[in-house]
Amino acid sequence: MSTVKMVEYDQASDEVKAVYDEIMKAKGIDFIPNFWKTVASHPPMLKQLWDEIGQVMAGGALDPLMKEMIALAVSATNGCDYCVNSHTAAAIAKGMTPAMHGELMAVVGFFNKTNKLSDGYQVEPDVKPNVE
Amino acid sequence: MSTVKMVEYDQASDEVKAVYDEIMKAKGIDFIPNFWKTVASHPPMLKQLWDEIGQVMAGGALDPLMKEMIALAVSATNGCDYCVNSHTAAAIAKGMTPAMHGELMAVVGFFNKTNKLSDGYQVEPDVKPNVE
Amino acid sequence: MSTVKMVEYDQASDEVKAVYDEIMKAKGIDFIPNFWKTVASHPPMLKQLWDEIGQVMAGGALDPLMKEMIALAVSATNGCDYCVNSHTAAAIAKGMTPAMHGELMAVVGFFNKTNKLSDGYQVEPDVKPNVE
Amino acid sequence: MSTVKMVEYDQASDEVKAVYDEIMKAKGIDFIPNFWKTVASHPPMLKQLWDEIGQVMAGGALDPLMKEMIALAVSATNGCDYCVNSHTAAAIAKGMTPAMHGELMAVVGFFNKTNKLSDGYQVEPDVKPNVE
Amino acid sequence: MSTVKMVEYDQASDEVKAVYDEIMKAKGIDFIPNFWKTVASHPPMLKQLWDEIGQVMAGGALDPLMKEMIALAVSATNGCDYCVNSHTAAAIAKGMTPAMHGELMAVVGFFNKTNKLSDGYQVEPDVKPNVE
Amino acid sequence: MSTVKMVEYDQASDEVKAVYDEIMKAKGIDFIPNFWKTVASHPPMLKQLWDEIGQVMAGGALDPLMKEMIALAVSATNGCDYCVNSHTAAAIAKGMTPAMHGELMAVVGFFNKTNKLSDGYQVEPDVKPNVE
Repeated sequence: MSTVKMVEYDQASDEVKAVYDEIMKAKGIDFIPNFWKTVASHPPMLKQLWDEIGQVMAGGALDPLMKEMIALAVSATNGCDYCVNSHTAAAIAKGMTPAMHGELMAVVGFFNKTNKLSDGYQVEPDVKPNVE
Repeated sequence: MSTVKMVEYDQASDEVKAVYDEIMKAKGIDFIPNFWKTVASHPPMLKQLWDEIGQVMAGGALDPLMKEMIALAVSATNGCDYCVNSHTAAAIAKGMTPAMHGELMAVVGFFNKTNKLSDGYQVEPDVKPNVE
Repeated sequence: MSTVKMVEYDQASDEVKAVYDEIMKAKGIDFIPNFWKTVASHPPMLKQLWDEIGQVMAGGALDPLMKEMIALAVSATNGCDYCVNSHTAAAIAKGMTPAMHGELMAVVGFFNKTNKLSDGYQVEPDVKPNVE
Repeated sequence: MSTVKMVEYDQASDEVKAVYDEIMKAKGIDFIPNFWKTVASHPPMLKQLWDEIGQVMAGGALDPLMKEMIALAVSATNGCDYCVNSHTAAAIAKGMTPAMHGELMAVVGFFNKTNKLSDGYQVEPDVKPNVE
Repeated sequence: MSTVKMVEYDQASDEVKAVYDEIMKAKGIDFIPNFWKTVASHPPMLKQLWDEIGQVMAGGALDPLMKEMIALAVSATNGCDYCVNSHTAAAIAKGMTPAMHGELMAVVGFFNKTNKLSDGYQVEPDVKPNVE
Repeated sequence: MSTVKMVEYDQASDEVKAVYDEIMKAKGIDFIPNFWKTVASHPPMLKQLWDEIGQVMAGGALDPLMKEMIALAVSATNGCDYCVNSHTAAAIAKGMTPAMHGELMAVVGFFNKTNKLSDGYQVEPDVKPNVE
């Protein structure tokens, strides 16, 4: 389990425990996922990641389920085992149906194919978009 | 422009022209994007990709804008220049606002970081999800 | 096994069973590989993938063994566990010898190195090729 | 052109010139490709790469054209611009036809898609192959 | 230049200008690099990234030059053009010599090769390390 | 264990045994790691890799610990399981402390994020560096 000794709740410093408590409360779970017990081995990273995920995943112009599905799309593209498992579980918890999941995977698969075709043929951009 | 000679409309076979006509109609544009002119160099691929994109991108459990933003998330993760440009442009055309784009990029950036941390620490899954 | 419930033969719809029968016949095996039982959770994807693999892998200008070895090269480059296992097994079934495998891996390793050196030094193309 | 000063023939040490002469002779060209002028900035790397490519690309159980096409498959999967251009050009020089190229790209595209689906669904291997 | 309108200093909000001033001061430069003008299009991201880079790159157990070279190793492995250029320039500014750069690239190239061989052969870990 | 039959010491040819003896001596271990037993299935690759790693990892302008940590950064970025485990273990053996490891991972995570943001926004380089 991890290349570092994971920090269990009972052995954690008060600062780490405070983040752990927030994690369990925010996710509505009664255990600390392995990812968080692992990054707690480097306390500044635990704090930084927890603060950032709170900002990034908060509802705004995109809703939390869509953000979770984007996280799954990224994780599938990177082939990250832990991440695919955890983001699939989190997306289910936020309301992803089997149909939504199937369509998501079809989109991820298709554009991974066209990405490699675009690179493999060295296709040049048609036009530069401008988001504003 | 591309490692193959792109197939221009005037030089295209009737079969290729038929797909080109569908592309311009579906996208509401009056030119053929470089990607499609490139893959037309291998006509079975042009036909296959056009049929598949129609199925994959059709509205269903996920709406077309969300699918386009997932395509952009995949393309950013893969670092595909053509694809980032074209999917950003397509997402704008489908209604992506600057706020949506900014949040999308924040999500893509954050989970690329956590993906690499999960792999870099070899974190093991907590639990196996089951979409059903 | 998979983040979705895999579709077993006995529980499959007639449409899925029809694809399963074709898979077993085409591959000369008497079980359904996990990949296909997984994508069957989204039936349009099962059908799409099976049709496409038939077109893509058919003998043409490249023979099926070479195509299988290219699939293995792609899978090794992506670090896809399932895919490396299945394409290695399929390549053996199609006649890949240990010497061919060893040379394939040496090529895959070497060009992954030079790919990263080219990117890491930002080397610019000498000349644009044109396949025609 | 490159993040380092490329080593031009006239400015090269005798040891580097000797490798340059071999490169031009082996490839039947009268210039030094940018990749080689770049890695010559670190002479031990130039020598190491040139020796290794000679071993790896020599005809053996796989012929040189097939090896070049595998190099292109790897480069497309990695999205390496320099490499896609140079290996496409080299494959043409070794006899790759447009039909072979089209089929190669179709295979590369398809298996990049299935690689990401396998990872995205966390499909587990059916059986462990054994090349011997 | 970027898929969004970059935020120029004169058009920036006071909050963005404050970060820009810190960037120029910290880096000892009199312009805002494109990366920062781009992410400023989503102000919470600008602030988040600037705070995080300050923490991450500060001297600690590893010195800033080593951290910059690790950033370059990551960027070469990902094939990120902007990043390779900017981290090479930053590493030079922090004291990276040509010899250090050549050795860094040799290490990056070699382990990209062995990474793909390990995955391509599905080599299983010998032993689990434990950093503590 | 591996897609090929690993070559055990007792079954190895004299040429392979000679490399195995050097590996154990150089690493101060009394077993042959799985990676080396695997690549020994293709003897020219074993010899090539062992020679190259000797050159690449030797102390020079960068010390061996820094090189090992760069190998770990590359492996985390590629998500290579075997490699992350082995390079973490090797870095510990060469003196990497928990604080160094934590900072390394923070750097790797952060720049994987900014790499994807740079690509996802298509940021163009500010200036071309020149290492000399």
